[in-house]
Order: sequence, then C-alpha cells, then structure tokens
Amino acid sequence: MLSIDHLHGSLTDPVLDSVNFLNEVMGRYPDAISFAPGAPRPAPFDDSVAAGHIRRYLRHLREARGADPEEAERLISQYGPARGLINDLVSQALRTDHGIDVAPESVVITVGAQEGMFVTLRALFSPGDVLAVAEPCFVGILGAARLLDIEVVPVSETDDGIDLDQLAGACRDARARGQRVRALYVAPDHSNPSGTLLDLRCRRELLALAHREDLLLLEDNAYAFTAAPDQELPPLKALDGGGRVVLIGTFAKVCLPGARVGYVVAGQDVRHGDGRSAPLAELIAAVKSMVTVNTSPVSQAVIGGMLLERGGSISALGEARAAEYRQNLRHLLQALDQRLSPGSTGIPGVSWNRPRGGFFVRVRVPVRADAELLELSAAEFGVLWTPMTHFHVGDGGTNELRLSCSYLSHAHIDEGVERLAALLDHVVCGARERNA
Amino acid sequence: MLSIDHLHGSLTDPVLDSVNFLNEVMGRYPDAISFAPGAPRPAPFDDSVAAGHIRRYLRHLREARGADPEEAERLISQYGPARGLINDLVSQALRTDHGIDVAPESVVITVGAQEGMFVTLRALFSPGDVLAVAEPCFVGILGAARLLDIEVVPVSETDDGIDLDQLAGACRDARARGQRVRALYVAPDHSNPSGTLLDLRCRRELLALAHREDLLLLEDNAYAFTAAPDQELPPLKALDGGGRVVLIGTFAKVCLPGARVGYVVAGQDVRHGDGRSAPLAELIAAVKSMVTVNTSPVSQAVIGGMLLERGGSISALGEARAAEYRQNLRHLLQALDQRLSPGSTGIPGVSWNRPRGGFFVRVRVPVRADAELLELSAAEFGVLWTPMTHFHVGDGGTNELRLSCSYLSHAHIDEGVERLAALLDHVVCGARERNA
Repeated sequence: MLSIDHLHGSLTDPVLDSVNFLNEVMGRYPDAISFAPGAPRPAPFDDSVAAGHIRRYLRHLREARGADPEEAERLISQYGPARGLINDLVSQALRTDHGIDVAPESVVITVGAQEGMFVTLRALFSPGDVLAVAEPCFVGILGAARLLDIEVVPVSETDDGIDLDQLAGACRDARARGQRVRALYVAPDHSNPSGTLLDLRCRRELLALAHREDLLLLEDNAYAFTAAPDQELPPLKALDGGGRVVLIGTFAKVCLPGARVGYVVAGQDVRHGDGRSAPLAELIAAVKSMVTVNTSPVSQAVIGGMLLERGGSISALGEARAAEYRQNLRHLLQALDQRLSPGSTGIPGVSWNRPRGGFFVRVRVPVRADAELLELSAAEFGVLWTPMTHFHVGDGGTNELRLSCSYLSHAHIDEGVERLAALLDHVVCGARERNA
Repeated sequence: MLSIDHLHGSLTDPVLDSVNFLNEVMGRYPDAISFAPGAPRPAPFDDSVAAGHIRRYLRHLREARGADPEEAERLISQYGPARGLINDLVSQALRTDHGIDVAPESVVITVGAQEGMFVTLRALFSPGDVLAVAEPCFVGILGAARLLDIEVVPVSETDDGIDLDQLAGACRDARARGQRVRALYVAPDHSNPSGTLLDLRCRRELLALAHREDLLLLEDNAYAFTAAPDQELPPLKALDGGGRVVLIGTFAKVCLPGARVGYVVAGQDVRHGDGRSAPLAELIAAVKSMVTVNTSPVSQAVIGGMLLERGGSISALGEARAAEYRQNLRHLLQALDQRLSPGSTGIPGVSWNRPRGGFFVRVRVPVRADAELLELSAAEFGVLWTPMTHFHVGDGGTNELRLSCSYLSHAHIDEGVERLAALLDHVVCGARERNA
C-alpha cells in the first residue's frame, strides 16, 4: 500500500470532511426534505437546447468576428487561448449590466468561479502573504487556499457588511509578524452561507480601507444577479477607481452549472520582480494554462449562445430564475415567521436574518447545531440543513445553521419548516421540560 | 500599480516564455510553413454534431443507467461529482482497448490531461518530494510542477526508452539529500517532443525499478492510440502488478480538444497520515473539487456520445485520425531522407529519429537551434519549428529541433522540408564556405 505522510491536509481537510459528511447524510436519508445544498434550480437542457446555443454562437463568430464557417468550427472544437474565447461577450455584459468598463483582454474565462479563485490566488500570493476572508465563508475559497498552503485569517460579517476595524487590525497584525494581508475574499451580494448584503456605505469604506492598507479585494459576485432590479447595489468593481478589485463570476447560478464556465476580471497592471509590467489577467491566464490549458470552448460556445439569446446580458439571462429564487426566499421567511417567531407558536431563542436575494437564510438556535443534531434531524424529523460551523475557519458558528431554498417547492418549504420547528421544539422545549 | 515581488516564477517562467516566444514568432510570420504546434488535426464539429453526441449520451443514461429523462438532463446540466460522470465508459474502454482492469471508482475525469497531471501531483507530493521527468520533456508537466513548487530532476531519454541507471542514481542522490523521488513522469508511447517509444524490455525494467526504489510512474498516454494496431505495446499500467502506475489520458488527440476532457486512473490504496486508507482516486477527486469542482458534464456528455458511437473504444475513436498521422509521419521521414540524408543532397551532421507513431520527429543539427536561428528561419526561409531547448529543464537540446507534422498536408510537408534544407544549407554549408 502507498503511504502518504504529509498531505498538506488534503484528504483530512475539515472543509472536505464537512462536505463529505453532508453528502453522506443526504445519501442515507434520501426522503428527507433538504435545506442543505445550495444548488441552482434545474432547467430543461437536452441535445436540441445545446445545439441551439452552439448554432447561435457559431453564427456570432461568423458575423461579429468575421470567421469563415470552417474557422468558426475550429475555434469551438480545438484548443484555444488560455484566456478564453467568449471574453468579448463577458466584457460587453459587464458593461451592459453593471456599467463596469473592462476590455476583453482584462477577462480570463475559467472552469467556473472555483478555478477563477484558485488561479487568482496562485497568481497573486507569495510566501508569507495572508488571505483574509469574510466569515462565515464559502468553502470553495478555503479549499483553494488550503491547496496552495495560503494562511487564512477570518474577519467577521456584521448585519450590513463586514467588520472593517477587525480587517484593519488583521492587516496590522500581519505586518507586525512580517507578513501582509494580500487580499480579502468577499461576496458582497447575499453571500454563501449567510445571505449577507454589504450596504453601499460598507462597500465604499471597504474600498477606502483596501487603498489605505494596500489590499486587494477578491469580489465573488455569484449571487449578484438574484437581487430585485430596483434593489441592486453596484458591485465593488464598479466603484473601484484604484484597481483594487478582482471580480470573480460564474454562469453556474444564472444559467448552466454543467457548463463549468466562470470568469475573472483583472485589468490592473502588475509590476513583476524583473521590472516588466503586464496586466494581471495575462498572469492569471498564464497560471491557468498550467492548470487546465483553457476552458472548454464547447462549453464556452453553449454559454456564449445563451448570452446572445438574451441580448448579451447576464442579468437578463438570470432574470426568470432570480424571480423564482426571491419568491422562494420570501416564502421561506414567511414560513419561519409563522411557525417560529416568538409571537406565534415560536421557540425561544430562535432568530434569523432577512436576505432579499441569494439562496440562503442564517438561523440562530439556542442549541448546538452540530453533526449530532443533524443526524437526529434527519433520522427522526426528516429534515436536512447545514451546520454553520462548516463555514468557519475556527470554532465559530456552533449555534447557527444555514437554510438553502433555491430549488424547493413552496409545499416542501412549508413542510420542511414544520419539521425543523418540530426538531427545535423537541431539543429546546423538550430539554427545558426535562430540566424542569 | 500593483507590485508582485516573489512570483514563484509564474510570468517569468522559462516554459511559458518559450511558448509565448513561439506564439509570437508564429503571429509575425503567418505565411510560414509551421512544423511547430503539436495540434491535433481538426475535424468537422458544429451544433448538429454536438447534438448527436449529447443525444446518444442521454439515451445511454436512460437505458444503461436507468435514469428517467428529467434525471438524465439534470446529470448533464447540473453540478456533478468531482470524480466525473463518464467514469463507467472510460473504465470499459480501458478494458476493451488495453486489457486494463479498473473499476469506474478508480477513474477521475479531469479538464484534459493537464488538470490530471496537476491534481495528481498535488495529491501525491509532500514537501521535499522530487519529480523525475524523462527529458526532453512535455512542458505541461513542468508547468504544473512549477506552480506547485515541486523540484524536478531530468532523466535522459535513450533511443529505446529512458536511462534507467540515471534514474536509479537520481533516487539515490535524493535520498542522500534527505529527499525522495516520489514519481517519474513518462510518456512511453511516442512522447512529445521526441517521439521516443519505450520498448517492452524498458517498460518491464522501469516497473521493476519503480518497485525497488518505491517510486510511482505517472504514465501519460496521450499518443498511445497513434501506433499501428500491430505495433502497439502494452501501457505500463497494463503491465503493473504492484500498483506503481498512475495513468493519465486525454480525449484531445483522439477526438475533440475543445471538450477539454481527460482522465486519471488511480485505483491503488493509499494510507494517510492519520491511519485511514482510501483509493488514490478519491484523494485526487478531493483535490480536483478545490481546483475546478468537476469537469463540465456537458463536455463529458459530448465525449461520452463519441465513445458510444464507436462501440465504447478509444482506439476505434482515434483510428481514422491515427492512420492519417502515421501517413504524415511517413511522408515527413521520406522527405527528410530525400532532401537531407548524407547520400543525397544532404547536409553533413544532420540526423533524425524514425518514430512510427505520435506527432513528432527529433532532428539533430550541427548548429545551435536557438531563437536567433528560428527568427532567421521564419524571416528568410519561411519555415517554423521548435527549438528542443524548450523541452529541457537545464541546458540540453541546443543542437536539436522538433518537427511536428500532425496537421500539415503532404505538399506543405515537402515544401517545409525544402525550406528547412535551404536554411541548413545556408547556415551549415554557408558557414563552411565563409570559413574556407
């Protein structure tokens, strides 16, 4: 048997362990109502849908980019540049949707946002650099940092954003140790797992702090499109006058997870050790070429066709789904109000936030929301959720859980909340009765 | 401007510099005949071709895997398991084509062979581990090792394989330094860049050495399918009784580079630091989940459909192309014989190997085959090739060049060899005349 001694924690990674644990529990209780996975709502997708999008993209290559038919086919079937094929469409969409003015050359098309995070970290971080993350935190960025042996320091979220004093303190502490906080990972729009929205003031102050502390902001905008059009806030990238923000996006939540297409926007100039300067996007593409060569041009063609069908707008592409997500979220909050609020049949010590976008609600409970409670919840009450501890670097989140409602029906949401209430009744009120 | 001080060599990487340099030269001389890129021959690919393959794969999910229509669509359009979707088909193909008996659970589907190499290195290597590579060496593995800060030690290729004494010496030297050679990267079948084929004896001796020295073999079989059926040698993996070989493959050369689908076969059990054991494939999939989450199921569906169309055989899938590649190779060798062999109008000191598969011929020349010569070759003689120095870790390969003939017409091969001969006439014989 092979022996692996120093695994830098890959298989024994707490992040993975928690994901595996969740999958394992879901596998054992297939009939439970699950508030666990943050999966996009499925849409019809078969050979004819795929063909329609590829056909439309091939036409775009011929008409807008002047490719002859053979050349257009070659572009979607052969290797291609590491930086991508549909960079022009992404650049155009960011201008249309968010007023972000980026050249196609500043965009790198990646295998989802996950590869975007991974290659950006590898391009930017040197030994001794520290990554700050808004906590609770998306596990994907923690996994990427883990693989690259990058030290992570958590900064607490607040109700309206993140704790900027804590962030400034983390920067000072790192300097005192001879290190530096190179970047903060933050999802300003209804983040996974807590649904937190950074308000406009927090966005501006964060940018000012990034400038003062010589810090980059890795902005994950996976859930940006889920807000109602009249409640959208400008992305950090749109407010960024000083080249402080690297924007990381994905088409997974908007239209097609199975395409695995995301993007990084990184137009800022970078001066290298040898004195040369080049756009950061070029460096990120160079790193990407050594990880996956390029993102599948076939997948890019499908996404390109989808974008073109909706006038080149990512917002338009995600519009119908976003409305459904918001309906589900409102329904979940209503169900929580009716069943769990103190005024009704509620359980003391239970509270939750009220996101207006994204997939997630953060629920605080007066008991430990751990693996043992989840097991009981699945086995005896038929309802699944995610312990918030999974999203903490350290020991936090023990009394919180994440509810995801992105793909459930309203009836399932009602029934799921009913079961969750029964669980909490049992452990909170039952414990009180037993103690009485 | 951002400043990046310690880039671990990413942008200033010699591997990348050489690739960029080649692309840049090709860009400036678009009309030159190019023996440079090792690109697969393009095949027709449009929306209806893609649709046919996706339709066939959806049918397979329904009929062979019992999925209902909605579930089948969900499998190709949603996120999926990190280890992949078409593992059953790859496992079956390896059994059919090579008699390699691997369970689907031992297979991880990756974003091309490049990601396969990257995640395998990350899963296997600990600090202090060294990667041996057969030299001259494919730049992709050097790039992956570079990103992961893995030390590389080159081992020379011979005419029939690799220098096993040198490899054993490298293992001893590493041990003496308190390190270990964890694995050897080797492409036994007509490797890129030299076209070298490991003969059967070398394969068996290499496996015995791997066992003695407690070494893994990372077998890249990208060009395995290009041999004539009666001249195929068994892959190292098929000869591997002791779990020494990790097989890394790709569909890029066989059918569709634009799908970016490859695979890793790693069924061996691994004992971890904490005493648990698990198949290596599980660990590799865990690493992959933090790099790209999963390989595009849409791309996997296209490749799955292509495999099913050809009875589930990778060899059958690549058969027609492989015959064309061999014809081109024979034509190139004939042209070299006619124009450059000593008996004819040849130039003294020029020789080449005679691969019977793959894309590449290695040519030795009596002058420095460097950037300056390539510039002259492109500007004055209209022919491009790759300096073999690009594929060396150290200073080797200065008097060699790589010719690739995978996608040229016979007429272009003839004309290209004519131009190459004119260049060599000029620099070799011209220099002699000037010196006389």
